[in-house]
Amino acid sequence: MVVFEITILGANGGPTEYGTQCFILKPARTEDPELIAVDGGAGMYQLREMLVQGRNENEGDDELVPSFYEHDREPIEFFIDSKLNIQKGLSKSLLQSLKRQGEHFESANTMKKTYEVFQGITDYYITHPHLDHISGLVVNSPSIYEQENSKKKTIWGLPHTIDVLQKHVFNDLIWPDLTAERSRKLKLKCLNPKEVQKCTIFPWDVIPFKVHHGIGVKTGAPVYSTFYIFRDRKSKDCIIVCGDVEQDRRESEESLLEEFWSYVAENIPLVHLKGILVECSCPLSSKPEQLYGHLSPIYLINELSNLNTLYNSSKGLSGLNVIVTHVKSTPAKRDPRLTILEELRFLAEERNLGDLRISIALEGHTLFL
Amino acid sequence: MVVFEITILGANGGPTEYGTQCFILKPARTEDPELIAVDGGAGMYQLREMLVQGRNENEGDDELVPSFYEHDREPIEFFIDSKLNIQKGLSKSLLQSLKRQGEHFESANTMKKTYEVFQGITDYYITHPHLDHISGLVVNSPSIYEQENSKKKTIWGLPHTIDVLQKHVFNDLIWPDLTAERSRKLKLKCLNPKEVQKCTIFPWDVIPFKVHHGIGVKTGAPVYSTFYIFRDRKSKDCIIVCGDVEQDRRESEESLLEEFWSYVAENIPLVHLKGILVECSCPLSSKPEQLYGHLSPIYLINELSNLNTLYNSSKGLSGLNVIVTHVKSTPAKRDPRLTILEELRFLAEERNLGDLRISIALEGHTLFL
Repeated sequence: MVVFEITILGANGGPTEYGTQCFILKPARTEDPELIAVDGGAGMYQLREMLVQGRNENEGDDELVPSFYEHDREPIEFFIDSKLNIQKGLSKSLLQSLKRQGEHFESANTMKKTYEVFQGITDYYITHPHLDHISGLVVNSPSIYEQENSKKKTIWGLPHTIDVLQKHVFNDLIWPDLTAERSRKLKLKCLNPKEVQKCTIFPWDVIPFKVHHGIGVKTGAPVYSTFYIFRDRKSKDCIIVCGDVEQDRRESEESLLEEFWSYVAENIPLVHLKGILVECSCPLSSKPEQLYGHLSPIYLINELSNLNTLYNSSKGLSGLNVIVTHVKSTPAKRDPRLTILEELRFLAEERNLGDLRISIALEGHTLFL
Repeated sequence: MVVFEITILGANGGPTEYGTQCFILKPARTEDPELIAVDGGAGMYQLREMLVQGRNENEGDDELVPSFYEHDREPIEFFIDSKLNIQKGLSKSLLQSLKRQGEHFESANTMKKTYEVFQGITDYYITHPHLDHISGLVVNSPSIYEQENSKKKTIWGLPHTIDVLQKHVFNDLIWPDLTAERSRKLKLKCLNPKEVQKCTIFPWDVIPFKVHHGIGVKTGAPVYSTFYIFRDRKSKDCIIVCGDVEQDRRESEESLLEEFWSYVAENIPLVHLKGILVECSCPLSSKPEQLYGHLSPIYLINELSNLNTLYNSSKGLSGLNVIVTHVKSTPAKRDPRLTILEELRFLAEERNLGDLRISIALEGHTLFL
């Protein structure tokens, strides 16, 4: 049964500036057009694109997706596992709930529709404050003051994220400090690591875990990111949505990923783990010093192998959806997403991880897990 | 004679997140594919879009541009003065110079082409550090470390910009401090206000002026932005490229715009002033407290009237191109760019400003001034 609807607003790992990481999530079959976002690299602009595409383009098996390497567009099958439940555009249940909420929705112009969909995002869960994970939400933020909007937005994150957003973004220098507006329509709120927190709008638990993401160029200080577990309290089904990450640093005393996988294996029966959205920024050919706090296929497969060992199932991780985000563009001949996908599939087979379903997160598409 | 080629990578005033302010400039008829940028709200992604469009779409009089209000697309004539010299996509002279530079350019894939065009941008002149004016350049910045790239980038700005970029963006928290990399491929450099500085790659003078842009929500401190004059030393022709701006604040002792227009009228004969790219974020109906440090048509026309008075020409400002940027999207019925353009033309006529040529800055287009 489908429990989670995940719309990919952005999964681009840079250095192109648009459509960087942002996923919007909702329970399947809800009546209300409410949404949460994980990261805010994209937003209203991408929603508008999806609303327009929904009207003008045919859906079908022969869909082509933007690539810009061997060809400007490539068949969608190149990027996804054949068993992945995926649809172009916003989910039908979201569009239906918007129509139910107000008769005017269908007759409204595209920009008004965009505002309405966007207002439904009431909670952001941010993995880390790097610009490509927050730029969309920041630039979108003044839209909450439009007269017709009564909804508020809360930005959640571990202290390493929220403190930086307050001090270095909503600081009246990089952006107006909208958290200081009297209306209190925008709030920043800290989560505690490893603590089960109730999602304010869905019957879900949210559990954040701190992970490593490189060190500062000048400061040498560790940079942290976040893995989120979202658990549907009724079905007990879970998804894991990750920010940028690297393997546990040898020189650090913190075994953050090790702890995370132990928590997962101990608390989430494999049959309830519906998917992992995780970065794999760089191809296998990248040297360790070129990773800058990211994963390449060998490191991602190492992590999945660790999880596999902990689950110790006879079928490996068979049936688990791994959705790869944040692949970096390069001036290569072949789309690095295709290179990385091929490498991951090869390594997963070599390591006997079972029938893993590995796909690329495609912008402008909705996944059903 | 055309002296300046200005490509609009972004002119969006938010709250949609993509294509925010970035203009790339070059002298007409140059041999080298070098470029400067004013602001960095957009970048590589938009360049890639323009390279793709150049191949696939017909040019012609019946061009439609994205709007998303009354219709998703509207005729280009709605947005521009009929005498404006404008072309869709990158300029032919830029594309020619890229082809001349390397035989491989034409046979390269779209992503490689994008890197090559983008590497040509060696100098950014930033008006102020608000996120919508810098997000593209920041996310694009790691591309300078690609092996095949030998070029460096310098980010210029008045101290109020450069200090904030160093402290709050390239700080190993919001973004890796790439200015601390040993290769020194990315540099931040301060300009002095009102000082004539030689552009490092073109035979142009660059003269920055500090202007007001509202006050902090929490701090109440004045926020500053920048107007840049670019002067071709040979022809003496000039253009003015502005960041966000508001009228001089009554409670402030600084008459920054008054000083600026005096400088312009005293130093640039009207016949040499080829154009002004200036914001007009909000329509006439906006109340002063809704402007948040921006201009509406009445305030922009007030400023142009002040300039007109200083020039004291019998023909008013006839022939001057005013290119309007940074219009904010709203959930309105009509495209606010069209509303603002109509209001500006009406007010300009009412004030007898002469045959002003007012147009909207259209993303993905090149202007020849």
